[in-house]
Amino acid sequence: MSIETAIAALESAFGDRLSRADTVRQTYGQNEAWYPVTPPDAVIWPETTEEVSLVARTCTEHGCPIVAWGAGTSLEGHIVPVQGGITLCFERMNRILEIHDEDMDVVVQPGVTRKQLNEDLRATGLFFPIDPGADASIGGMAATRASGTCAVRYGTMRESVMALEVVLADGRIIRTGSRARKASNGYDLTKLFVGSEGTLGIITELTVRLHGQPEAISAAICGFNDINGAIQTVIETIQMSIPVARIELLDGTSIRAMNAYSGYEMKEGPTLFIEFHGSERGVAEQAQTVGELCAENGGTGFEWATKAEDRNRLWSARHNFYYAMKAMCPGRTGYNTDSCVPISRLADCILESLEDIAESGFTSPLVGHVGDGNFHLSYMVEPENADEIERARALADRLSKRTIAMGGTVSGEHGIGIGKRKFMEAEHGADAWAIMGDIKRTFDPAGILNPGKLVPGN
Amino acid sequence: MSIETAIAALESAFGDRLSRADTVRQTYGQNEAWYPVTPPDAVIWPETTEEVSLVARTCTEHGCPIVAWGAGTSLEGHIVPVQGGITLCFERMNRILEIHDEDMDVVVQPGVTRKQLNEDLRATGLFFPIDPGADASIGGMAATRASGTCAVRYGTMRESVMALEVVLADGRIIRTGSRARKASNGYDLTKLFVGSEGTLGIITELTVRLHGQPEAISAAICGFNDINGAIQTVIETIQMSIPVARIELLDGTSIRAMNAYSGYEMKEGPTLFIEFHGSERGVAEQAQTVGELCAENGGTGFEWATKAEDRNRLWSARHNFYYAMKAMCPGRTGYNTDSCVPISRLADCILESLEDIAESGFTSPLVGHVGDGNFHLSYMVEPENADEIERARALADRLSKRTIAMGGTVSGEHGIGIGKRKFMEAEHGADAWAIMGDIKRTFDPAGILNPGKLVPGN
Repeated sequence: MSIETAIAALESAFGDRLSRADTVRQTYGQNEAWYPVTPPDAVIWPETTEEVSLVARTCTEHGCPIVAWGAGTSLEGHIVPVQGGITLCFERMNRILEIHDEDMDVVVQPGVTRKQLNEDLRATGLFFPIDPGADASIGGMAATRASGTCAVRYGTMRESVMALEVVLADGRIIRTGSRARKASNGYDLTKLFVGSEGTLGIITELTVRLHGQPEAISAAICGFNDINGAIQTVIETIQMSIPVARIELLDGTSIRAMNAYSGYEMKEGPTLFIEFHGSERGVAEQAQTVGELCAENGGTGFEWATKAEDRNRLWSARHNFYYAMKAMCPGRTGYNTDSCVPISRLADCILESLEDIAESGFTSPLVGHVGDGNFHLSYMVEPENADEIERARALADRLSKRTIAMGGTVSGEHGIGIGKRKFMEAEHGADAWAIMGDIKRTFDPAGILNPGKLVPGN
Repeated sequence: MSIETAIAALESAFGDRLSRADTVRQTYGQNEAWYPVTPPDAVIWPETTEEVSLVARTCTEHGCPIVAWGAGTSLEGHIVPVQGGITLCFERMNRILEIHDEDMDVVVQPGVTRKQLNEDLRATGLFFPIDPGADASIGGMAATRASGTCAVRYGTMRESVMALEVVLADGRIIRTGSRARKASNGYDLTKLFVGSEGTLGIITELTVRLHGQPEAISAAICGFNDINGAIQTVIETIQMSIPVARIELLDGTSIRAMNAYSGYEMKEGPTLFIEFHGSERGVAEQAQTVGELCAENGGTGFEWATKAEDRNRLWSARHNFYYAMKAMCPGRTGYNTDSCVPISRLADCILESLEDIAESGFTSPLVGHVGDGNFHLSYMVEPENADEIERARALADRLSKRTIAMGGTVSGEHGIGIGKRKFMEAEHGADAWAIMGDIKRTFDPAGILNPGKLVPGN
């Protein structure tokens, strides 16, 4: 009954698809946040659901932790094996199984990445709109309920995942949901697994909703003298039900970094990046209306671009924003926040947080999926500098408390993992968080699935 | 430890808001389906969450069943107190607590009905789009994950409910979700309670998402010679991402009943009722495109109406469809089905079911929220005629099996209740259904919350 005996029991079944090599363990001990490298005891690359079931059954029997690994891009330490054990890497379960053009859905294995999926879909006229920036795996995106820039129009993984195949802790394989577009057929197990961060079961297959590639797309940029004007524009756009596909806020610091990194010459101030999807006429109408809102709120230089190359360059710059920040602050990495508040509180939440930053002396860009009330600060810290990390943590905690007080969530899209667990009780209340722990124990009485994350206790 | 002692323990707290009168018990023993009258032992009208908590705590202690009652409009016997006990009627918890214009959400008590809510919202420019036809309560709609005609555009209660206050079986009061538009903050308890049919907790407050009243609305009707052409039009409309607000199919039988009941003179054949929401230009563009699709698929007489009175008359006729059927078949009531299949299977599923009906000799109209792949048959039966009910049940069972085989669900929007429980194992698989039972026992170990419904066992 130990990690060692579990691994020994699995060695013959997996051969060279089970590794205990130091270099491998080091690789899978890393994370995209600032948590120290924490290697698992072994890494396994399953190829079938039945193999995942074997691992789960064996690990439950021996009391060995399992951490599921998609593309390793999560930002809150979800993939850090804090109690050791086995990391299950899904890179070999990366097949697109069924594309249903007529129904606008697709069945994939969890290791498929969103870019891979969209490349495969290109000829179908359909696309998968959830775009967290990183080329994350669809399995990982479901497990963390990811979203990103297009959520304002197309929703998050919560709305996208229609059905799952899941391996339970004891090895049972279940299917949840269906390809029907709606259902009132019992507890919504699909939605329970989406966002459960590998603590309730291991996702081995997903059916996700697709959307038609829009007939026309255009992107727009507009600068503002003060951040309030930009936020007010966003609020009015949402309230008028203008179906913007993306509406992103970047502050002056972010623009400065992007200009330097991507060769832009944008005015360094609060800026909205907007994208419109629809018919030719619809897109033009949307752009015109939003352009008017920008002007009324003090925006200048509203420009819209319909050429794909201009748009791609713009969103590529937006997606590379984090690397741009790292380039501007050599040797530093971002301590990221992920507040999401009701949109009526967004201006207050942002302005109070910017005051904190100004006092702190940190360089800390702000970018936001503001149509959803979600924004990120990245306090640029030296990862080895304990004092800086402590100061960043204090700032982030202050923001988290502010967010909860404003009726929001400390995690709009990054998940809980290790980093946000300390806020679960404050955000949900002790009883609701306790209920999550009860659910966890119902699904995983041995506590082997991603232990130390999300729920109370270990 | 009994129903009797539970009621006795609650009598002093509720006074005349607890009734054991026969007439009252008879009233709350009724249901909108064809289940026999089954009175509860007592009815309680709570006014506060704390009172609901007292009832739950007392009932858990004494082992007394609780059935929550909103407006009594459910169609699968959810509200039938099959094991007796207390029916909690929410008609006194019917206040609209907070309207958040800027955030486009509203906080309500569970007894608020959807029409009451929309009347209150009229001046705000916002509306609540979920429309199951009946003037159901918002609490009941959440508990059954209701949807209806507008789901194709605005989603179902699954997408609408943002946050809940829930009384657990042991009396603890929890809050789930928040007014933030998205969150990746732990298990989605909100979505777990939505559709749980009163078996996991009792909803005492809801925050639901609103939408902007569209600048322009128009409705269209188009007749088809064969049902295939109508369905093909729907599929193409959805695939082209035309954001229709409603797209309803009615067969010739339904149209005949509506003509007789509402004084229309529509051609008696498969007909699409369509509604468009958007800007003036957007609505015109949508109507033109859908009109073209109708014509290409053999539709004739595509007409669109922008006048509110014409539209209201049309949808009122659609909503009164069931009463029209009852008027056409005096002394009979509908044995309703609720299949929802992937849209690519909709034509097959409908055509095979219509063949069954033709053979059976039943009058059985077909109406469908076909943009979602959801359609209803109503076998018109004499409620006292056991043979007819048995034949209707056999037909419905055949349709349910067909639906599951086609990858759909037997309950698109009506819920499981009593009527659909026998299909849960076939639809979800034994292990997934068993997991639902495990969740139920975690939340309600004494089994007092709406026993005999949804999960395995009693």
